[in-house]
Amino acid sequence: MIELEILKGLSVETPSKIVLLIFDGLGGIPHPDTSKTELESAKTPNLDRLAAEGICGLTDPVSPGITPGSGPGHLSLFGYDPVKYLVGRGVLEALGMEFDLVKGDVAARCNYCTVDDSGVITDRRAGRIPSEQNAELCEKLREIKIDGIEMFIMPGKEHRFAIVFRGHGLTGEVNDTDPQKVGMKPREAISLSTDATKLANVIHEFISHAKSILANSYPANMILFRGISQKPNLPMMGNIFKLNPAAIATYPMYRGMARLVGMEILNTGSTFSDELDTLVANWNNHDFFYVHIKYTDSAGEDGDFERKVRVIEEADALLPKLIDLKPDVLVVTGDHSTPAMLKGHSWHPVPLLLRAQHCRTDDSREFSETACTRGGLGRILATDIMPLAMANALKLDKFGA
Amino acid sequence: MIELEILKGLSVETPSKIVLLIFDGLGGIPHPDTSKTELESAKTPNLDRLAAEGICGLTDPVSPGITPGSGPGHLSLFGYDPVKYLVGRGVLEALGMEFDLVKGDVAARCNYCTVDDSGVITDRRAGRIPSEQNAELCEKLREIKIDGIEMFIMPGKEHRFAIVFRGHGLTGEVNDTDPQKVGMKPREAISLSTDATKLANVIHEFISHAKSILANSYPANMILFRGISQKPNLPMMGNIFKLNPAAIATYPMYRGMARLVGMEILNTGSTFSDELDTLVANWNNHDFFYVHIKYTDSAGEDGDFERKVRVIEEADALLPKLIDLKPDVLVVTGDHSTPAMLKGHSWHPVPLLLRAQHCRTDDSREFSETACTRGGLGRILATDIMPLAMANALKLDKFGA
Repeated sequence: MIELEILKGLSVETPSKIVLLIFDGLGGIPHPDTSKTELESAKTPNLDRLAAEGICGLTDPVSPGITPGSGPGHLSLFGYDPVKYLVGRGVLEALGMEFDLVKGDVAARCNYCTVDDSGVITDRRAGRIPSEQNAELCEKLREIKIDGIEMFIMPGKEHRFAIVFRGHGLTGEVNDTDPQKVGMKPREAISLSTDATKLANVIHEFISHAKSILANSYPANMILFRGISQKPNLPMMGNIFKLNPAAIATYPMYRGMARLVGMEILNTGSTFSDELDTLVANWNNHDFFYVHIKYTDSAGEDGDFERKVRVIEEADALLPKLIDLKPDVLVVTGDHSTPAMLKGHSWHPVPLLLRAQHCRTDDSREFSETACTRGGLGRILATDIMPLAMANALKLDKFGA
Repeated sequence: MIELEILKGLSVETPSKIVLLIFDGLGGIPHPDTSKTELESAKTPNLDRLAAEGICGLTDPVSPGITPGSGPGHLSLFGYDPVKYLVGRGVLEALGMEFDLVKGDVAARCNYCTVDDSGVITDRRAGRIPSEQNAELCEKLREIKIDGIEMFIMPGKEHRFAIVFRGHGLTGEVNDTDPQKVGMKPREAISLSTDATKLANVIHEFISHAKSILANSYPANMILFRGISQKPNLPMMGNIFKLNPAAIATYPMYRGMARLVGMEILNTGSTFSDELDTLVANWNNHDFFYVHIKYTDSAGEDGDFERKVRVIEEADALLPKLIDLKPDVLVVTGDHSTPAMLKGHSWHPVPLLLRAQHCRTDDSREFSETACTRGGLGRILATDIMPLAMANALKLDKFGA
């Protein structure tokens, strides 16, 4: 993995164009009946042609054996060391609600919960109150005023909501107040680092106001905080790679991740076909496009092997629209594996293909885990994908004399 | 390579069991007559079946091109960065003598040597005196008293012995007193770091006492110190990986290495068959077993290609006893290569196989250097083996949200 500072020094602006096409949770493991993964089961004539024309490999989003969350999985695809640059849970939640975080903002995931007369939690999810009631309660919480602090309260589904605190000096680490089990009182918000006193006080004050406001809202008569985290201070992709990058994604969280690294977010519809229309319409305005397909991951998470196969096939059928744009570099991979057999993210390395004029092609004739295992790129870290894409786009100068 | 601190945060305790089976010096290079390595020449139906059911690859104990000693070779297998965590030669020597080092202990390898009237070394090995004489001289050296310091003197073979110093404030680095050639006086013990003054003084004092005691013991009339080193302060495997790890090894040094990382050392006999009996007897008491086969390395060191083949075949024939225990994750590899053609440790990457339910098998049908080169694990660092084993045992949480 090469440091971003070094890449910044090597990157040059050119007219060539890179497309990074991400099938969320692409990698799989074989179905016991067929010994084929989802990608291997899918009929993918277009991806297979790209594999034949390009070069394949396997990529580890973080490190062998490590199962990444969506944050680390994406940051590494964008070229950022996912261990150095962390995105907190609260921040991801706010991004997923399409909230436009600015520098210094602190975000948290919250739950309404139920406490008894002595303040002990009896239900961490307040009986999963209806989302409408959640919205009404959030409206009440918006009455809370804290000196010098702006607050943004966003209801989610059932008992879940998010808060963003904005104000001077909100730094450092504060613990979760959710004790993760019933039969205990909520934890106090405590500063875990010396610079977090103000943030801890603000959260403490918010909670005591909320407690009064919610006193008669049984079962939602208290709140719990988790994943309190500050907007990470990431270098901008445009600045490092001398790119004018754009993101096309149907899900808010991925648009949010792209915004964190300074991509322009392009409006698009809810299908891959819509995304491709957006790509075509904006082709002349950018030199880097991140295109995100969500539904491979959703199918994997649901354990629906066949649906994941179908999502891959449907996307493959639409690919000519992208290929016809003739990107100088086309990378197809995933942010992690989500094998349907495991119903969740996994540690398995992710299939990767790169097609470009000078990519030194290998003998892969199909895009599959098996072909990628033998591919010419070998097994590389996902953070190496951006440098490889940049190099193949002839956008990287020589390192050293 | 992922930091231990991060792995510690991700590791969870589960009932699943991991077996790490180490053939010491497993990797080889082809015999010129057959173009096959030792592993490729051996008939190994059981390892081949494991390779077919599992996934293969190659592993570098330290880094490509680096020939590891037994210390780094094993530390990396246990998940520890072998460049960050060093085990000194003196410490390895003491471990090999089954000495139970405690925190703060300093160990050294020593030689009896011959000096002339002016103190110049004429034989660095004192004519390889008989081991019995060595033991008698060590008994004499035990008369040496140094204020506040406990000393443990352990005779080895011929002219070799080991010393452990125990006492407050024995820290830092001290040079070897062995100049590595004759015709020179022994070097003074000098502190190489600011905190080593006391240690240097203790060694200096020991040497001057020894010089008097040995004055009339020609040819063993002086001693030389090498590899003066402190017991390394390693994080405990049980603490990092939430495992209850046990070691089964016939050689003291490997038991010692395992003790350094906090494994429980199980009593066993001198053969692999004994080791397997020990494994069976203790199967319910631990969730991680390190099992060490020494004789592949010994045969390689002796340049005995055929014997190394035979050791592998004999171990393979016994493997069903291990396989029948149905470990959730079985890893088979070596701590380094010891090609018989080179009669010593080498830099060649080591064959690796991992079998587990969700390992995403590859098309390897035999366990061999050639199959491993094309295996689905690719070429990975040995420090990645523990994270992979943990992931496959479903003992690692997701990293990041």
